[in-house]
Amino acid sequence: MALTICVQATAQPNVDSIYIKKIANHALIQGKAYTQLRVLCKQIGHRLSGSPAMYKAEAWGSATLAQYGADTVYTQPCQVTHWVRGAKENGSYKWISQQGETVQTAEKNIDILSLGNAVGTGAQALKADVLLINNFEELEAKKDQAKGKIVFFNYAFDQTYIRTSTGYGNAVTYRTQGASKAAKYGAVASIVRSVSTSPDNNPHTGTVKYNDSFAKIPAFAVGVQDADNMAQLLKTGKLIVTLQSSCATLPDTLAHNIIAEIRGAKNPNNIITIGGHLDSWDVGEGAQDDGAGVVQSMEVINILKSIGYTPNNTIRVVLFANEENGLGGGNMYASQAGKGNQMHIAAIETDAGGYSPRKFGGSKSDVQYAKFKAWLPLLFPYGIDELTQSGGGADIGPLYTLYKTPTIGLQTDGQRYFDLHHSKTDVYENVNKRELHLGAATITALVYLIDKYGL
Amino acid sequence: MALTICVQATAQPNVDSIYIKKIANHALIQGKAYTQLRVLCKQIGHRLSGSPAMYKAEAWGSATLAQYGADTVYTQPCQVTHWVRGAKENGSYKWISQQGETVQTAEKNIDILSLGNAVGTGAQALKADVLLINNFEELEAKKDQAKGKIVFFNYAFDQTYIRTSTGYGNAVTYRTQGASKAAKYGAVASIVRSVSTSPDNNPHTGTVKYNDSFAKIPAFAVGVQDADNMAQLLKTGKLIVTLQSSCATLPDTLAHNIIAEIRGAKNPNNIITIGGHLDSWDVGEGAQDDGAGVVQSMEVINILKSIGYTPNNTIRVVLFANEENGLGGGNMYASQAGKGNQMHIAAIETDAGGYSPRKFGGSKSDVQYAKFKAWLPLLFPYGIDELTQSGGGADIGPLYTLYKTPTIGLQTDGQRYFDLHHSKTDVYENVNKRELHLGAATITALVYLIDKYGL
Repeated sequence: MALTICVQATAQPNVDSIYIKKIANHALIQGKAYTQLRVLCKQIGHRLSGSPAMYKAEAWGSATLAQYGADTVYTQPCQVTHWVRGAKENGSYKWISQQGETVQTAEKNIDILSLGNAVGTGAQALKADVLLINNFEELEAKKDQAKGKIVFFNYAFDQTYIRTSTGYGNAVTYRTQGASKAAKYGAVASIVRSVSTSPDNNPHTGTVKYNDSFAKIPAFAVGVQDADNMAQLLKTGKLIVTLQSSCATLPDTLAHNIIAEIRGAKNPNNIITIGGHLDSWDVGEGAQDDGAGVVQSMEVINILKSIGYTPNNTIRVVLFANEENGLGGGNMYASQAGKGNQMHIAAIETDAGGYSPRKFGGSKSDVQYAKFKAWLPLLFPYGIDELTQSGGGADIGPLYTLYKTPTIGLQTDGQRYFDLHHSKTDVYENVNKRELHLGAATITALVYLIDKYGL
Repeated sequence: MALTICVQATAQPNVDSIYIKKIANHALIQGKAYTQLRVLCKQIGHRLSGSPAMYKAEAWGSATLAQYGADTVYTQPCQVTHWVRGAKENGSYKWISQQGETVQTAEKNIDILSLGNAVGTGAQALKADVLLINNFEELEAKKDQAKGKIVFFNYAFDQTYIRTSTGYGNAVTYRTQGASKAAKYGAVASIVRSVSTSPDNNPHTGTVKYNDSFAKIPAFAVGVQDADNMAQLLKTGKLIVTLQSSCATLPDTLAHNIIAEIRGAKNPNNIITIGGHLDSWDVGEGAQDDGAGVVQSMEVINILKSIGYTPNNTIRVVLFANEENGLGGGNMYASQAGKGNQMHIAAIETDAGGYSPRKFGGSKSDVQYAKFKAWLPLLFPYGIDELTQSGGGADIGPLYTLYKTPTIGLQTDGQRYFDLHHSKTDVYENVNKRELHLGAATITALVYLIDKYGL
């Protein structure tokens, strides 16, 4: 018996590499992820929580998972944030020289986006002088100048981070925290330089997180070219900016996690969850974020059913609701995941774009990690060059918090990701079929290994 | 003295990792590769050997390398193939049912490209029945049917290869060898299914290699959608295809390798060569193939001069002429590289597109390889996950042949490369700045290591 356990607990290189090759071949030749991503992006489009398109996407997800041959498809209701952008924002500025003779420019339009969950300016446009702030330390030094101003946070994405997700984490705090930090000192609105690696001028949205201790002020993003221009003009004059937005947060509304399962033949109560989030921001098409992760997760069922794999444990795909501006779906899923006899073996999230797969990582014990990282030689031929003990994903995070479920996030070759993330260029045309399908192959291979050997 | 050699021969992790970070930071923040690629693509455009644009590109390369502060910039004349496409090709087909009652379609246009170095049809269009051939074995079986026909090779790119360059190598033989194999059995022209990973219908050009034992027949590529359509129609009828092309090979003409050096402070006769090829096919802009490699190679000089690195050995950047359809530049360079007291330590080529860097590999002795692969931990943080003993590059291949110079090719995350390779979509817009600059950083880091420790 001890011997049997030992054999089962150790990957069998030849058998496994052959089976993983079968998985990858299916993904690359007969995979449906790219075709379904086109449906999601072009027939449904962006799908912010609470929007009509979100409900269409839920219906598409359920129907497609049923077509893929899942044993069960069901929906899990949850309450989600219901923020609406309203009419297209208006932004403009006028520059007035503060050196030599008085010169002033004509009003110049700037392309702005309200940050998600932000309050709007209302029917009346908001007009005020701009205070340029490069970082939070500078805000503290200039706090007496902020009253009545529009604070413009011009913290640039640090492109020296090789992993762009680290650079994003470093810069995004200005988007999430800036408004309330400015409001603390009396600012009337905030503008953040888009958290973007692209040289283009598209504004990138994403959530603002208000601190309830301070006034909620309208919060916007501008493109990096406009940000550079504004910073340049402020060297020799002042900027008077006009902003108008009609965004608003409505009462929370009903959404659903879309769940599909292949029932485990041996241990049906033991669950391996794989998921991405179905909601997206309301610009572009949410193609890389996270349409890619949605179709990759669904593809796990498509591949396993197509090649006739009978799992030992229940393979459960979850299309999470409301990742972008509330996490209503992820929290609901975790709250239900401990009920009955269910036990989660692991949870995998794909929310780093459908680029070439590079690494898997997430929260695990040392013992789990030792087992996990021994699989690297089986995944290396498919582009996975590291299995790490850090990473994970927003939607599956609550599973680790509540149950210490080992979490695993797919990390991709993300050099391009923050060029388009949360902007209008996050469209189907910017997803590559082979990269998308190769990612689906590696996730499915990992599911196979976890199903066969545990974690 | 022995101790000194030992210390010099072993990489110093802290010192080296700090210096490599300095290189990468410069590349990512102040690098000029992307800006210069725009100049090359948009102001000069594609630049086939012998074309006016090739000469413009030579002048741009020399001037830019001088601006970058190279100690010497010079040109090395060489004779190159001078093939011209002539007027846009015309292609069309008519389908005639061979089942049930006679039905025939109206003439339908197909988008075709002459293969590079192919002969044209002349002023008169060529019209003949099509013989579909899926692979060379099938051609042997059907050789008696080929006389007077247009042989259509419909061998599909095998997408199950994870490394697309391997899949390319597998399929490209139909493009290079197909025409002469068909001519051997009396075919009057050949059409090859484009060697492409993309689902789009753009034809991809590239060389045909005629076997002098057989007639030189016109040779074309069609897009994969047209190829699929034609194969489908041939199941139930015959296709009569009309082809016209006016391409021709003119007498060889003068071109130049563009060469720039930073003189070695200790061993000026010891050379480390880094290069890409300046010529391109005459569709698209030659942005990934190999504008990217050209600007990355040039960037080595820009970075090393900008950060004030004084090399021990001479760092020599070569923009090779005529890689695509003759190798006149690479052969000339190698023929001169052994003259005088020159000794090549190593040669690096970047001709796999400006995608995220993944591996370096090329011909080396076992002793050289042992030293080389020990550098992996220094390059891993920048995306390089393997240093291999295979690989290299077309332009530096003759250096290994003649002198056993260790050769090293940059291998990229090439999932997208053969979507656009040799087609009209190989344009600047499909190159990503961070990926391009990260590649330049890794090449420069490798040059630094070779310069410091030898190979």
